[in-house]
Amino acid sequence: MNDEENIKKAEKIRNGDIRTATRLIRNIENNVPGAKSTIKHLFPFTGKAHVVGLTGAPGAGKSTLIDSFISQYRKKDKKIGALLVDPTSPFTGGAILGDRVRLQRHAEDPDVFVRSLATRGALGGLSKAAGDAIHVMDAMGKDVILVETVGTGQQEVEIMNHVHTVIVVLVPGMGDEVQAIKAGILEVADVFVINKADRNGTGKLYRELMHMLDMADSFPGGWRPPIIQIGDMFEKEGFGKSIEELLENVQGHYENLVEKELLGDRIRRKAVVELNEALQSSILAPILETLIADGEMDTMVDKLLKKKSDPYSCAEEIAKKYLKKP
Amino acid sequence: MNDEENIKKAEKIRNGDIRTATRLIRNIENNVPGAKSTIKHLFPFTGKAHVVGLTGAPGAGKSTLIDSFISQYRKKDKKIGALLVDPTSPFTGGAILGDRVRLQRHAEDPDVFVRSLATRGALGGLSKAAGDAIHVMDAMGKDVILVETVGTGQQEVEIMNHVHTVIVVLVPGMGDEVQAIKAGILEVADVFVINKADRNGTGKLYRELMHMLDMADSFPGGWRPPIIQIGDMFEKEGFGKSIEELLENVQGHYENLVEKELLGDRIRRKAVVELNEALQSSILAPILETLIADGEMDTMVDKLLKKKSDPYSCAEEIAKKYLKKP
Repeated sequence: MNDEENIKKAEKIRNGDIRTATRLIRNIENNVPGAKSTIKHLFPFTGKAHVVGLTGAPGAGKSTLIDSFISQYRKKDKKIGALLVDPTSPFTGGAILGDRVRLQRHAEDPDVFVRSLATRGALGGLSKAAGDAIHVMDAMGKDVILVETVGTGQQEVEIMNHVHTVIVVLVPGMGDEVQAIKAGILEVADVFVINKADRNGTGKLYRELMHMLDMADSFPGGWRPPIIQIGDMFEKEGFGKSIEELLENVQGHYENLVEKELLGDRIRRKAVVELNEALQSSILAPILETLIADGEMDTMVDKLLKKKSDPYSCAEEIAKKYLKKP
Repeated sequence: MNDEENIKKAEKIRNGDIRTATRLIRNIENNVPGAKSTIKHLFPFTGKAHVVGLTGAPGAGKSTLIDSFISQYRKKDKKIGALLVDPTSPFTGGAILGDRVRLQRHAEDPDVFVRSLATRGALGGLSKAAGDAIHVMDAMGKDVILVETVGTGQQEVEIMNHVHTVIVVLVPGMGDEVQAIKAGILEVADVFVINKADRNGTGKLYRELMHMLDMADSFPGGWRPPIIQIGDMFEKEGFGKSIEELLENVQGHYENLVEKELLGDRIRRKAVVELNEALQSSILAPILETLIADGEMDTMVDKLLKKKSDPYSCAEEIAKKYLKKP
């Protein structure tokens, strides 16, 4: 495809064309080579949206939360993008469909654009795909982009590098959960939500989180992550208020980033991550493809199986062949 | 360090020298360049151990299970290596210490070698480090190597590519858990354990798992993953029996792999994964280091922030500079 076509596509997306945007995100997900070229033309028009991440264990109620989030933002006439990322399925390649179904009621609203992404291929491509999909929604003119991931592993944290504000969703009664939080999520959380807060164990979880936060020496920009409690009964009185409280805190976090001149740091971190991911796809992926196409991969694997070589010697041989002398 | 020293180190490790092995695993974890060279000399002596993976959510009781596992294997006079991998902590870099503490009672046994690994640096280094640490334990002459990971994300699944038999540990009463299982873990599980099986919800979880397995068209090698239920009260009568049942099934899975000539496939898959990971560290890592050292990384990030370029154009520029013409 020539560049003019990519420029035309980029223009369509900037004008909010949903079909073109949907196709581009699917091409990003499936690693279709041309997708990169369209992103290049979108990139100069990105950077306006507030990107908000939501992460938490399966069953923490993130999708219902996002659903209420969207409704609340729509009341304020904000244009919304929502990206549901499922890194738990590296083999089947299918995002949990239920999530999409639950957000169905916004399907008719032209100012709500919902997509899901699942893992395709190896090499940590999911975080890169998420970054690119965020660019697409950003260039479409969305005011707020919600990014949902499942779990607390490294990949989820990588994806959270693409957002400005991270919401960590917890539910009471999951036992050793706080141990897991201690081990990785505390550092990335900007806002905590205790969801299903009418369950047993809410008080305990709240106190444990408070205690953890009390132990921290300091917070970047002086922003101590607030803990918002949200009840299970979404229809009951009071829920609307706590969602609003959540929204206020998310907005407050963003304003604090701007005020304390920390937004630049977050954006810089995003840029470094994206550059790393682009290097993966521009350097390593083509070498791997050549190795596989030439049958060299098979030859080397055979050598390894027969213990005639080791992975490091093989890799050094390949580096010698493909890399210029330093 | 010259090669002779690496050969000497490799020899020491093959003779079971715990201090040399410990230091090498630490160097692998910290990406010390020389570590690769020692692994090269160990590689020809690997491939004898049965490598068993255990994965499951935090709080599923994996460490206690591994502890009982080790005791049971020791009764059969097997030499054991145990590797505790914590991918949930990309920022702090610390493996959950509690795990190590719980395995303390085997500390005096010279035939039990326990190490933990945590995430250091980016670029999916943890799976590579786990693969190398398994090689070290394998070359030490361990009969069985247990590899524990936390969670069900992509990185855990990558690590599970290094093992022969995967045990997935579940606990009842975690709500939407089976949805998460459906989405990623079913494909890698060889044996299911329902731990804390005296809790409410055990029957439900068991039936859901059975139903999921019933839905599968076929199983590789005709091995339908068994579901072993293990009670919470480890000291009570009966527990010893279910751990033994688990061991028998783990052994049975391995024998089935050998019988059905599928072990070769697993070993081949391991080799492909290791080769990919070695390419990361031999090709991409040195380029990144050079970019950072030369200040080029900063220059490019500035360009991105000013929207004067985009990540893909930057990466292509770098590829042109470092890669030979195809």
